[in-house]
Amino acid sequence: MKLVRYGLIGRERPGIIDAAANIRDLSSVVDDIDGQMIANGGIDKIRSASVEALEIVKGNPRLGACVGNVRNMIAVGLNYSDHAKESGMPIPSEPIIFLKHTGCICGPNDNTILPQSSTKLDHEVELGIVIAKPASNIPSEEDAKEFIAGYFVHNDVSERSFQIDRSGGQWSKGKSCVTFGPIGPWFVTADEVEDPQNLDMWLDVNEERRQRGNTKTMIFSAKYLVWYCSQFMAMQPGDVIVTGTPPGVGLGAKPTPKFLKAGDVVTLGIEGLGEQRQVIVQFGTSS
Amino acid sequence: MKLVRYGLIGRERPGIIDAAANIRDLSSVVDDIDGQMIANGGIDKIRSASVEALEIVKGNPRLGACVGNVRNMIAVGLNYSDHAKESGMPIPSEPIIFLKHTGCICGPNDNTILPQSSTKLDHEVELGIVIAKPASNIPSEEDAKEFIAGYFVHNDVSERSFQIDRSGGQWSKGKSCVTFGPIGPWFVTADEVEDPQNLDMWLDVNEERRQRGNTKTMIFSAKYLVWYCSQFMAMQPGDVIVTGTPPGVGLGAKPTPKFLKAGDVVTLGIEGLGEQRQVIVQFGTSS
Repeated sequence: MKLVRYGLIGRERPGIIDAAANIRDLSSVVDDIDGQMIANGGIDKIRSASVEALEIVKGNPRLGACVGNVRNMIAVGLNYSDHAKESGMPIPSEPIIFLKHTGCICGPNDNTILPQSSTKLDHEVELGIVIAKPASNIPSEEDAKEFIAGYFVHNDVSERSFQIDRSGGQWSKGKSCVTFGPIGPWFVTADEVEDPQNLDMWLDVNEERRQRGNTKTMIFSAKYLVWYCSQFMAMQPGDVIVTGTPPGVGLGAKPTPKFLKAGDVVTLGIEGLGEQRQVIVQFGTSS
Repeated sequence: MKLVRYGLIGRERPGIIDAAANIRDLSSVVDDIDGQMIANGGIDKIRSASVEALEIVKGNPRLGACVGNVRNMIAVGLNYSDHAKESGMPIPSEPIIFLKHTGCICGPNDNTILPQSSTKLDHEVELGIVIAKPASNIPSEEDAKEFIAGYFVHNDVSERSFQIDRSGGQWSKGKSCVTFGPIGPWFVTADEVEDPQNLDMWLDVNEERRQRGNTKTMIFSAKYLVWYCSQFMAMQPGDVIVTGTPPGVGLGAKPTPKFLKAGDVVTLGIEGLGEQRQVIVQFGTSS
């Protein structure tokens, strides 16, 4: 199933994409697409619903973040072997974990707002994971599969001057600004993703291909990451993990870095999980 | 006012400490002590309530985290000049910011659970700040004052092997384990803290003084930190910022580090904000 949240910012309603690519309204089945819904068996409720009987949403509404009320956004750094090679960085022996402030989360096609003193805005296409149930000290990687509710596309928007030059080494500052966390368009339930470790992914800036990759070059798989994070954090339903980016970020461009500027259009997607489109806008413009 | 949450884990009720140090039940006034309450004017409602008419809570209930449903726990590293000096580290030119997974948050006197492969458990007494209203790009440090709802004591419990040796440089992994975020006993409203930059603080292990300090040696003040974080993160009511620790952590002990082990008792406090007490227990024991 492809679940969505549609409508104005802060007033999103739950929806589902039907066979003809319409949004059908899910308000009569669940209150929202979020951790509470997942914890309360909402996914099974939606699965039992008669989708073709639900009302078709008219027009072309804004899509919100595909998961609402996210409590924790866990992020993984340097998790693609080809990206590590490109950057001349050693392959990490364990996942590198940081967190993004949840105030960054936004819809997949919302504008990306340049922060006030931004000088090095960059993009990172990433596979996102939605946690299905309380996940603390999962016994083994194999067990981790049942803790995954689904997947989504994420652009881990990064201001490199905050993340690196002005960070004292901690990345969160450059990863957490408003609109730095577009997630969606869809929360695709795990049963629809046959092999999460074989998904093509790409990102264009102004229709020029910048990033291309496949989740098969992830150093630590989705399943492994869920198991791993559960050793350090008591994850809850609706927590999300974003899993790192393949080669081609602006910071790594040769001979000089290529950062984003107002007016640029970023499009990105992952096989089977849909596409996003963001316009970069000046500080002071609305998202 | 000194606000508390009392009762069993996950079932805490709101309370207030009266002039005779009793807990009075606030359930008839507000639903919880959390961001939603703060956002909806709950603090003024409590202020208008007739405290002496509220029921006295009998017995000696467990205290929960002094703020419920925290959405983001923002942390500041190396923020005391005497601690930086002790560590031989340069004084940061800007605050160093990271986040703790909110699953670490617990009551002030709950047991601290050693993670499964813990080898270097450590303590950090810290001043915590509760955010009062949506805080994004606050114009100036002076303006930041009105975004502070209150203060609390925090022990920024840290597993140094996860934070440093196995981190790839990102600290969150060693700061986010279950029970690594005791906050309280009280959420002390800002009006009761005359000068947040002149508060004595201390931490003992097994009744031996390990940390002593005063918030006057903070490099970046509480007000400054609220202003600063608002440049990078859209903070919400009930978000918290924990502001760094003074000298005396176990990692810095001479001639060799002194880490915590099962059975140790950690007590800590900040002038006017109350005291905490944690017993260190093996993995597999309940908090």
